[in-house]
Amino acid sequence: MATPIQENLVAKNKAYASSFTGGGLALPPAKKYAVVTCMDARIHAAEAYGIYLGDAHIIRNAGASARDALRSLVISEQLLGTEEILLIKHTGCGMLTFKNEDAEALVKKNLGEDAVKALVAFKGDFLTFPELDEAVKDDVEFLKQSKLIPEKIKSKISGWVYEVETGKVRSVV
Amino acid sequence: MATPIQENLVAKNKAYASSFTGGGLALPPAKKYAVVTCMDARIHAAEAYGIYLGDAHIIRNAGASARDALRSLVISEQLLGTEEILLIKHTGCGMLTFKNEDAEALVKKNLGEDAVKALVAFKGDFLTFPELDEAVKDDVEFLKQSKLIPEKIKSKISGWVYEVETGKVRSVV
Repeated sequence: MATPIQENLVAKNKAYASSFTGGGLALPPAKKYAVVTCMDARIHAAEAYGIYLGDAHIIRNAGASARDALRSLVISEQLLGTEEILLIKHTGCGMLTFKNEDAEALVKKNLGEDAVKALVAFKGDFLTFPELDEAVKDDVEFLKQSKLIPEKIKSKISGWVYEVETGKVRSVV
Repeated sequence: MATPIQENLVAKNKAYASSFTGGGLALPPAKKYAVVTCMDARIHAAEAYGIYLGDAHIIRNAGASARDALRSLVISEQLLGTEEILLIKHTGCGMLTFKNEDAEALVKKNLGEDAVKALVAFKGDFLTFPELDEAVKDDVEFLKQSKLIPEKIKSKISGWVYEVETGKVRSVV
């Protein structure tokens, strides 16, 4: 029994596939870059950031966290040849609105003590941040300091903010 | 000095923002669902999966790994009210083409012994998979077994494959 969400996926995808012409694209991103941005529902990354099909890896997680994205970034560079990173956080991010302690308390209340133990086992930190531009700078610095990011890429890591109110991107670092 | 990739972001975003009308959307996803899919450059998630701006969280990482997405999923549900998960892997995925050992060997060769140590410290597993449909089933099962996913959501986790050759989605589990 399909849910309305699943029915929407099937119906909308059918229409998408009926005019699909991108079947011949190669696995490695054609323009050799990766974008890290937030999972936020108000961001349509490809359109907002001008990414054509096949051009770039798009990594999305809660808060556009560079730490959370590290596995994907290493794969992107080491195995699929990307050479540049755009890190794009955004205004009105959920990760600005609560703290790690709040999230942990909620998990404990809603899911119980076992869930808190599972949480610690998987990561233990929600990677929230108190200030937006500083968080962008911190994440770019984290990547520049990481031994897992090759030196040749470090000069091509930039940090940005996307404004969900206006659709505009601005440069931070 | 902006790179061509950065210039593309600025120019394309300017055009996007000039006709942007989504500034009034709320933070929580309107349709209360989250999609986990791959970072692959050949996937434009919003278009291919019929996701309207503001409707759903879109989480993307190498291989559409549920484990890697767990932090984001917990935040999506516990703090932002989503109640359903679509997990969508795809044909031709890079994670099908190499093994954890290959990736680790490459990191060691290209970035040195220190990078391998950093790798282990951050996660230590590239979360590759040998067979596509099985990997979808495994990930859905992982979420259904997770103490971090509430019971009420477990009946609304579905697994899918997106075909990069045709643009079509098919149901797996």
